[in-house]
Amino acid sequence: MKRSEIVQARNRAIEMLRRASIAITAEEAADLEVADFGLGRLESEGLEIVVYVNNDRYCAKELVLFPYQTCPEHKHPPVGGRPGKQETFRCRAGEVYLYVPGTPAPAPKAKVPGEHYTVFHEIVLRPGDQYTLPPETLHWFQAGAEGAIVSEFSSPSVDEADVFTDPNVKRIPIVED
Amino acid sequence: MKRSEIVQARNRAIEMLRRASIAITAEEAADLEVADFGLGRLESEGLEIVVYVNNDRYCAKELVLFPYQTCPEHKHPPVGGRPGKQETFRCRAGEVYLYVPGTPAPAPKAKVPGEHYTVFHEIVLRPGDQYTLPPETLHWFQAGAEGAIVSEFSSPSVDEADVFTDPNVKRIPIVED
Repeated sequence: MKRSEIVQARNRAIEMLRRASIAITAEEAADLEVADFGLGRLESEGLEIVVYVNNDRYCAKELVLFPYQTCPEHKHPPVGGRPGKQETFRCRAGEVYLYVPGTPAPAPKAKVPGEHYTVFHEIVLRPGDQYTLPPETLHWFQAGAEGAIVSEFSSPSVDEADVFTDPNVKRIPIVED
Repeated sequence: MKRSEIVQARNRAIEMLRRASIAITAEEAADLEVADFGLGRLESEGLEIVVYVNNDRYCAKELVLFPYQTCPEHKHPPVGGRPGKQETFRCRAGEVYLYVPGTPAPAPKAKVPGEHYTVFHEIVLRPGDQYTLPPETLHWFQAGAEGAIVSEFSSPSVDEADVFTDPNVKRIPIVED
Protein backbone atom coordinates (compact mmCIF):
# COMPACT_ATOMS: atom_id res chain seq x y z
CA MET A 1 0.00 0.00 0.00
CA LYS A 2 1.11 3.55 -0.62
CA ARG A 3 1.40 5.76 2.41
CA SER A 4 -1.13 8.19 0.90
CA GLU A 5 -3.71 5.39 0.60
CA ILE A 6 -3.15 4.47 4.25
CA VAL A 7 -3.61 8.07 5.39
CA GLN A 8 -6.81 8.43 3.36
CA ALA A 9 -8.28 5.15 4.70
CA ARG A 10 -7.27 6.08 8.24
CA ASN A 11 -9.05 9.43 8.00
CA ARG A 12 -12.16 7.76 6.58
CA ALA A 13 -12.21 5.25 9.47
CA ILE A 14 -11.73 8.04 12.02
CA GLU A 15 -14.70 9.88 10.53
CA MET A 16 -16.87 6.72 10.72
CA LEU A 17 -15.95 6.28 14.40
CA ARG A 18 -16.77 9.92 15.06
CA ARG A 19 -20.17 9.58 13.41
CA ALA A 20 -20.86 6.50 15.59
CA SER A 21 -19.93 8.53 18.72
CA ILE A 22 -16.99 6.22 19.46
CA ALA A 23 -14.19 8.30 21.00
CA ILE A 24 -10.56 7.46 20.36
CA THR A 25 -7.47 9.33 21.50
CA ALA A 26 -5.21 11.32 19.15
CA GLU A 27 -2.57 8.60 19.61
CA GLU A 28 -5.04 5.85 18.69
CA ALA A 29 -6.07 7.82 15.61
CA ALA A 30 -2.44 8.21 14.54
CA ASP A 31 -1.79 4.48 15.05
CA LEU A 32 -5.05 3.25 13.49
CA GLU A 33 -4.09 0.19 11.45
CA VAL A 34 -5.06 -0.03 7.79
CA ALA A 35 -4.76 -3.65 6.61
CA ASP A 36 -4.99 -4.58 2.94
CA PHE A 37 -3.71 -8.10 3.68
CA GLY A 38 -1.08 -7.62 0.97
CA LEU A 39 -3.77 -8.00 -1.71
CA GLY A 40 -3.68 -4.43 -3.00
CA ARG A 41 -7.45 -3.98 -3.19
CA LEU A 42 -8.26 -2.30 0.11
CA GLU A 43 -11.79 -1.23 -0.88
CA SER A 44 -12.97 -4.82 -1.40
CA GLU A 45 -10.67 -6.77 0.95
CA GLY A 46 -9.36 -4.84 3.89
CA LEU A 47 -9.93 -3.77 7.45
CA GLU A 48 -9.26 -0.73 9.66
CA ILE A 49 -8.38 -1.51 13.26
CA VAL A 50 -8.00 0.31 16.58
CA VAL A 51 -6.31 -1.97 19.12
CA TYR A 52 -7.49 -0.88 22.57
CA VAL A 53 -5.63 -3.52 24.55
CA ASN A 54 -3.80 -6.76 23.76
CA ASN A 55 -2.09 -8.33 26.74
CA ASP A 56 -1.30 -11.94 27.72
CA ARG A 57 -4.86 -12.49 29.02
CA TYR A 58 -7.32 -10.67 26.74
CA CYS A 59 -7.67 -8.37 23.76
CA ALA A 60 -10.16 -5.71 22.65
CA LYS A 61 -10.29 -3.90 19.32
CA GLU A 62 -12.61 -1.73 17.28
CA LEU A 63 -12.88 -2.90 13.66
CA VAL A 64 -14.03 -0.46 10.98
CA LEU A 65 -15.29 -1.72 7.62
CA PHE A 66 -16.05 0.54 4.67
CA PRO A 67 -19.22 -0.25 2.65
CA TYR A 68 -18.95 -3.83 1.33
CA GLN A 69 -15.36 -4.12 2.58
CA THR A 70 -14.46 -7.71 3.51
CA CYS A 71 -12.12 -9.22 6.07
CA PRO A 72 -10.78 -12.24 4.13
CA GLU A 73 -11.46 -15.81 5.26
CA HIS A 74 -9.09 -17.05 7.96
CA LYS A 75 -8.79 -18.95 11.23
CA HIS A 76 -6.73 -18.66 14.39
CA PRO A 77 -4.54 -21.71 15.11
CA PRO A 78 -3.13 -22.69 18.52
CA VAL A 79 -0.02 -20.64 19.38
CA GLY A 80 2.69 -21.52 21.88
CA GLY A 81 0.69 -24.35 23.43
CA ARG A 82 -2.41 -22.18 23.94
CA PRO A 83 -5.69 -22.89 22.12
CA GLY A 84 -6.45 -20.71 19.08
CA LYS A 85 -7.86 -17.23 19.56
CA GLN A 86 -11.52 -17.12 20.59
CA GLU A 87 -13.44 -14.04 19.45
CA THR A 88 -16.71 -12.26 20.11
CA PHE A 89 -17.84 -9.84 17.40
CA ARG A 90 -20.30 -7.20 18.55
CA CYS A 91 -21.83 -4.92 15.94
CA ARG A 92 -21.81 -1.26 17.06
CA ALA A 93 -22.94 0.47 13.87
CA GLY A 94 -24.03 -0.55 10.37
CA GLU A 95 -24.65 -4.13 9.33
CA VAL A 96 -22.24 -7.05 9.14
CA TYR A 97 -22.50 -10.38 7.31
CA LEU A 98 -20.42 -13.01 9.06
CA TYR A 99 -19.73 -16.42 7.48
CA VAL A 100 -18.72 -19.60 9.31
CA PRO A 101 -18.84 -23.36 8.57
CA GLY A 102 -22.36 -24.81 8.39
CA THR A 103 -25.37 -24.85 6.12
CA PRO A 104 -24.62 -22.32 3.36
CA ALA A 105 -26.98 -19.39 2.92
CA PRO A 106 -29.01 -19.95 -0.29
CA ALA A 107 -28.62 -16.28 -1.23
CA PRO A 108 -25.76 -14.71 0.78
CA LYS A 109 -26.18 -11.03 1.56
CA ALA A 110 -22.46 -10.43 1.00
CA LYS A 111 -20.92 -10.03 -2.42
CA VAL A 112 -18.23 -12.72 -2.40
CA PRO A 113 -15.11 -10.70 -3.24
CA GLY A 114 -12.83 -13.44 -4.61
CA GLU A 115 -12.27 -17.14 -5.11
CA HIS A 116 -10.69 -17.96 -1.75
CA TYR A 117 -13.93 -18.18 0.23
CA THR A 118 -15.17 -21.61 1.34
CA VAL A 119 -17.65 -21.13 4.25
CA PHE A 120 -21.09 -19.63 3.71
CA HIS A 121 -23.19 -20.15 6.81
CA GLU A 122 -24.50 -16.63 7.33
CA ILE A 123 -24.94 -14.65 10.52
CA VAL A 124 -26.32 -11.12 10.17
CA LEU A 125 -25.25 -8.70 12.89
CA ARG A 126 -26.96 -5.37 13.44
CA PRO A 127 -26.16 -2.84 16.21
CA GLY A 128 -26.29 -4.65 19.56
CA ASP A 129 -25.99 -8.13 18.02
CA GLN A 130 -22.95 -10.27 18.70
CA TYR A 131 -21.55 -13.70 17.89
CA THR A 132 -18.79 -15.74 19.54
CA LEU A 133 -16.51 -17.89 17.38
CA PRO A 134 -14.87 -20.96 18.89
CA PRO A 135 -11.09 -21.25 18.29
CA GLU A 136 -9.94 -22.52 14.88
CA THR A 137 -13.25 -21.65 13.17
CA LEU A 138 -12.85 -20.50 9.57
CA HIS A 139 -14.62 -17.18 9.12
CA TRP A 140 -14.90 -14.05 7.00
CA PHE A 141 -17.13 -11.00 7.19
CA GLN A 142 -18.32 -8.10 5.08
CA ALA A 143 -20.02 -4.80 5.89
CA GLY A 144 -23.32 -3.77 4.33
CA ALA A 145 -23.97 -0.67 2.25
CA GLU A 146 -23.35 1.77 5.12
CA GLY A 147 -20.10 0.18 6.30
CA ALA A 148 -19.86 -1.12 9.85
CA ILE A 149 -18.13 -0.83 13.19
CA VAL A 150 -17.55 -4.02 15.18
CA SER A 151 -16.11 -4.41 18.67
CA GLU A 152 -13.94 -7.49 18.96
CA PHE A 153 -13.49 -8.99 22.44
CA SER A 154 -11.12 -11.96 22.49
CA SER A 155 -8.35 -13.99 24.00
CA PRO A 156 -4.88 -12.56 23.17
CA SER A 157 -4.32 -11.65 19.53
CA VAL A 158 -1.32 -12.98 17.56
CA ASP A 159 -2.12 -11.66 14.07
CA GLU A 160 1.00 -13.05 12.41
CA ALA A 161 -0.17 -16.60 13.27
CA ASP A 162 -3.52 -16.26 11.43
CA VAL A 163 -4.09 -18.77 8.64
CA PHE A 164 -5.79 -17.30 5.57
CA THR A 165 -7.50 -19.34 2.86
CA ASP A 166 -6.00 -17.08 0.18
CA PRO A 167 -2.29 -18.04 -0.13
CA ASN A 168 -1.55 -14.50 -1.40
CA VAL A 169 -2.47 -12.85 1.90
CA LYS A 170 0.29 -11.13 3.83
CA ARG A 171 -1.22 -10.15 7.18
CA ILE A 172 1.55 -7.74 8.17
CA PRO A 173 1.33 -4.77 5.76
CA ILE A 174 4.06 -3.61 3.43
CA VAL A 175 4.15 0.19 3.22
CA GLU A 176 5.57 2.00 0.19
CA ASP A 177 6.38 5.70 0.20
CA MET B 1 -33.45 -3.43 46.85
CA LYS B 2 -37.09 -3.19 45.93
CA ARG B 3 -38.03 -4.46 42.49
CA SER B 4 -39.45 -1.03 41.60
CA GLU B 5 -36.11 0.61 42.36
CA ILE B 6 -34.34 -1.90 40.13
CA VAL B 7 -36.75 -1.26 37.24
CA GLN B 8 -36.34 2.51 37.57
CA ALA B 9 -32.52 2.30 37.66
CA ARG B 10 -32.51 -0.12 34.74
CA ASN B 11 -34.59 2.26 32.62
CA ARG B 12 -32.34 5.16 33.52
CA ALA B 13 -29.24 3.17 32.48
CA ILE B 14 -30.91 2.13 29.21
CA GLU B 15 -31.64 5.77 28.44
CA MET B 16 -28.02 6.76 29.15
CA LEU B 17 -26.78 4.03 26.78
CA ARG B 18 -29.23 5.22 24.12
CA ARG B 19 -28.03 8.81 24.45
CA ALA B 20 -24.43 7.58 24.05
CA SER B 21 -25.45 5.68 20.84
CA ILE B 22 -24.56 2.33 22.44
CA ALA B 23 -26.97 -0.30 21.13
CA ILE B 24 -28.07 -3.20 23.31
CA THR B 25 -30.59 -5.92 22.51
CA ALA B 26 -34.03 -6.15 24.14
CA GLU B 27 -32.78 -9.21 26.06
CA GLU B 28 -29.72 -7.33 27.33
CA ALA B 29 -31.97 -4.44 28.41
CA ALA B 30 -34.25 -6.85 30.32
CA ASP B 31 -31.23 -8.49 32.02
CA LEU B 32 -29.33 -5.26 32.75
CA GLU B 33 -27.90 -5.74 36.24
CA VAL B 34 -28.54 -3.13 38.93
CA ALA B 35 -26.07 -3.63 41.80
CA ASP B 36 -26.45 -1.79 45.10
CA PHE B 37 -23.81 -4.04 46.74
CA GLY B 38 -26.30 -4.75 49.53
CA LEU B 39 -25.72 -1.25 50.93
CA GLY B 40 -29.18 0.17 50.19
CA ARG B 41 -27.98 3.49 48.81
CA LEU B 42 -27.87 2.88 45.06
CA GLU B 43 -27.58 6.55 44.12
CA SER B 44 -24.27 6.99 45.94
CA GLU B 45 -22.83 3.44 45.86
CA GLY B 46 -24.00 1.29 42.99
CA LEU B 47 -23.43 0.24 39.41
CA GLU B 48 -25.48 -0.74 36.37
CA ILE B 49 -23.99 -3.47 34.20
CA VAL B 50 -24.54 -5.05 30.78
CA VAL B 51 -22.50 -8.25 30.50
CA TYR B 52 -21.72 -8.78 26.80
CA VAL B 53 -19.66 -11.93 27.22
CA ASN B 54 -18.02 -13.78 30.10
CA ASN B 55 -16.42 -17.08 29.13
CA ASP B 56 -13.43 -19.03 30.45
CA ARG B 57 -10.97 -16.86 28.46
CA TYR B 58 -12.20 -13.25 28.51
CA CYS B 59 -15.00 -10.95 29.59
CA ALA B 60 -16.51 -7.69 28.28
CA LYS B 61 -19.10 -5.49 29.97
CA GLU B 62 -20.58 -2.03 29.67
CA LEU B 63 -20.71 -0.24 33.04
CA VAL B 64 -23.17 2.62 33.56
CA LEU B 65 -22.72 5.08 36.42
CA PHE B 66 -25.28 7.72 37.36
CA PRO B 67 -23.95 11.19 38.27
CA TYR B 68 -21.53 10.81 41.22
CA GLN B 69 -22.44 7.13 41.60
CA THR B 70 -19.52 5.08 42.97
CA CYS B 71 -18.41 1.50 42.51
CA PRO B 72 -17.14 0.69 46.04
CA GLU B 73 -13.47 -0.14 46.73
CA HIS B 74 -12.56 -3.74 46.01
CA LYS B 75 -9.99 -6.09 44.49
CA HIS B 76 -10.05 -9.33 42.54
CA PRO B 77 -8.21 -12.22 44.27
CA PRO B 78 -6.84 -15.34 42.55
CA VAL B 79 -9.60 -17.89 41.88
CA GLY B 80 -9.19 -21.61 41.26
CA GLY B 81 -5.43 -21.37 40.80
CA ARG B 82 -5.73 -18.55 38.23
CA PRO B 83 -4.34 -15.06 38.90
CA GLY B 84 -6.86 -12.41 39.95
CA LYS B 85 -8.98 -10.68 37.32
CA GLN B 86 -7.11 -8.12 35.22
CA GLU B 87 -9.22 -5.24 33.90
CA THR B 88 -9.07 -2.45 31.36
CA PHE B 89 -11.52 0.40 31.91
CA ARG B 90 -12.25 2.48 28.80
CA CYS B 91 -14.38 5.59 29.20
CA ARG B 92 -17.03 5.86 26.48
CA ALA B 93 -19.08 8.80 27.75
CA GLY B 94 -18.97 11.23 30.68
CA GLU B 95 -16.07 11.46 33.09
CA VAL B 96 -14.75 8.87 35.55
CA TYR B 97 -12.49 9.26 38.57
CA LEU B 98 -10.60 6.04 39.24
CA TYR B 99 -8.62 5.49 42.43
CA VAL B 100 -5.77 3.01 42.94
CA PRO B 101 -2.85 2.62 45.39
CA GLY B 102 -0.17 5.32 45.07
CA THR B 103 0.41 8.97 45.88
CA PRO B 104 -2.97 10.31 47.03
CA ALA B 105 -4.54 13.17 45.10
CA PRO B 106 -4.28 16.34 47.23
CA ALA B 107 -7.85 17.34 46.25
CA PRO B 108 -9.68 14.29 44.82
CA LYS B 109 -12.31 15.08 42.20
CA ALA B 110 -14.62 12.39 43.61
CA LYS B 111 -16.80 12.94 46.66
CA VAL B 112 -15.72 10.08 48.93
CA PRO B 113 -19.05 8.36 49.64
CA GLY B 114 -18.24 6.53 52.90
CA GLU B 115 -15.56 5.47 55.33
CA HIS B 116 -14.42 2.27 53.63
CA TYR B 117 -12.15 3.93 51.08
CA THR B 118 -8.37 3.63 51.49
CA VAL B 119 -6.69 4.31 48.10
CA PHE B 120 -6.65 7.79 46.59
CA HIS B 121 -4.22 7.86 43.69
CA GLU B 122 -6.41 9.49 41.04
CA ILE B 123 -6.77 8.70 37.35
CA VAL B 124 -9.23 10.83 35.39
CA LEU B 125 -10.77 9.12 32.36
CA ARG B 126 -12.61 11.03 29.65
CA PRO B 127 -14.11 9.53 26.46
CA GLY B 128 -11.41 7.53 24.67
CA ASP B 129 -9.17 7.28 27.75
CA GLN B 130 -8.48 3.90 29.33
CA TYR B 131 -6.52 2.36 32.19
CA THR B 132 -5.46 -1.23 32.85
CA LEU B 133 -5.40 -2.51 36.44
CA PRO B 134 -3.04 -5.34 37.36
CA PRO B 135 -4.66 -8.26 39.26
CA GLU B 136 -5.29 -7.78 43.01
CA THR B 137 -5.13 -3.97 42.78
CA LEU B 138 -7.48 -2.23 45.20
CA HIS B 139 -9.63 0.25 43.26
CA TRP B 140 -12.84 2.24 43.25
CA PHE B 141 -14.34 4.70 40.82
CA GLN B 142 -16.95 7.43 40.61
CA ALA B 143 -18.69 9.19 37.73
CA GLY B 144 -18.65 12.96 37.32
CA ALA B 145 -21.66 15.27 37.20
CA GLU B 146 -22.98 13.85 33.89
CA GLY B 147 -22.68 10.19 34.85
CA ALA B 148 -20.47 7.90 32.79
CA ILE B 149 -20.32 4.83 30.60
CA VAL B 150 -17.24 2.62 30.83
CA SER B 151 -16.35 -0.43 28.74
CA GLU B 152 -14.63 -3.09 30.80
CA PHE B 153 -12.38 -5.56 28.96
CA SER B 154 -10.93 -8.24 31.23
CA SER B 155 -9.95 -11.77 32.02
CA PRO B 156 -12.92 -13.90 33.14
CA SER B 157 -15.18 -12.32 35.76
CA VAL B 158 -16.04 -14.13 39.01
CA ASP B 159 -17.99 -11.41 40.83
CA GLU B 160 -18.75 -13.48 43.93
CA ALA B 161 -15.00 -13.77 44.62
CA ASP B 162 -14.44 -9.98 44.76
CA VAL B 163 -13.06 -8.67 48.05
CA PHE B 164 -14.59 -5.35 49.18
CA THR B 165 -13.08 -3.03 51.76
CA ASP B 166 -16.53 -2.41 53.28
CA PRO B 167 -17.48 -5.55 55.28
CA ASN B 168 -21.17 -4.74 54.73
CA VAL B 169 -21.02 -5.25 50.97
CA LYS B 170 -22.98 -8.13 49.52
CA ARG B 171 -22.00 -8.32 45.84
CA ILE B 172 -24.88 -10.59 44.81
CA PRO B 173 -28.07 -8.51 45.16
CA ILE B 174 -31.04 -9.33 47.34
CA VAL B 175 -34.31 -8.42 45.62
CA GLU B 176 -37.47 -7.63 47.59
CA ASP B 177 -40.91 -7.46 46.01
